[in-house]
Amino acid sequence: MGKEIERKFLVKEGAWQPKDKGTTIRQGYLSSVKERVVRVRTKGEKAFITIKGITKGISRSEFEYQIPVEDADPLLTNLCEQPLIEKTRYKEVCGNHTWEIDVFFGSNLGLIVAEVELKDETELLELPNWVGEEVSSDPRYFNSNLIQNPYEKWGRG
Amino acid sequence: MGKEIERKFLVKEGAWQPKDKGTTIRQGYLSSVKERVVRVRTKGEKAFITIKGITKGISRSEFEYQIPVEDADPLLTNLCEQPLIEKTRYKEVCGNHTWEIDVFFGSNLGLIVAEVELKDETELLELPNWVGEEVSSDPRYFNSNLIQNPYEKWGRG
Repeated sequence: MGKEIERKFLVKEGAWQPKDKGTTIRQGYLSSVKERVVRVRTKGEKAFITIKGITKGISRSEFEYQIPVEDADPLLTNLCEQPLIEKTRYKEVCGNHTWEIDVFFGSNLGLIVAEVELKDETELLELPNWVGEEVSSDPRYFNSNLIQNPYEKWGRG
Repeated sequence: MGKEIERKFLVKEGAWQPKDKGTTIRQGYLSSVKERVVRVRTKGEKAFITIKGITKGISRSEFEYQIPVEDADPLLTNLCEQPLIEKTRYKEVCGNHTWEIDVFFGSNLGLIVAEVELKDETELLELPNWVGEEVSSDPRYFNSNLIQNPYEKWGRG
């Protein structure tokens, strides 16, 4: 019963440039409480509904279903909590790991976050030179929180 | 752009008896606010996730997706708001209409409700002799409200 560990970092301004056009992601939430997150997401030409709960013991806590992409637009625009999260996702291979770099736009414009999955907490991770501060455990960066409190509203000094 | 009208009635105690074994329905909610209801339901051997919003103009406000029945049990038991709604659904044809009779159990034991769909508000409806008080517009009988305030807790005189 493996459990994947995700680490999340800010990307240093100006230190990273996209190498391709990436994949556009548009997502919203039908429920954003931590006990039952229900996310609608378009990713390129596909659409998904994903349900995440709190992991209890060995119970599976994530369920994902592909849905017709023509349903996703009215779900996102009319039903989901607003504002939506809009970002372009890029992938970068560095050493043994593939990083996902999310460049946000819309109400989170200016935020760039890089995520990597590790098999366990002790796995060695080579940090690319464009990786900045680690924000893995900062709840402000949870996607579900970027709706209630988008990046454009943060007081930054 | 037809809109179906649903009318809901109580069933008179002792005046109706099931003619077959009906279909067992077990359902719960991942979101029960009226702007975005997300329901998980098992119906016999099938399972569905249904998303309902408030109808705005001509926009479609209900989306239903079949999901693997083996996903439904952990979704209902671990993720949905508790308690769940459990009922057996029977169908009865009367004149031109098919009635759905829901016999609740669990925390709504004792509640029996009959529903019928009409094409428009003026359509004539023959009422079977087992039909009692109309409760179409009483929010206490909305399935999503039978979780927050199940029938067993209602003060009945």
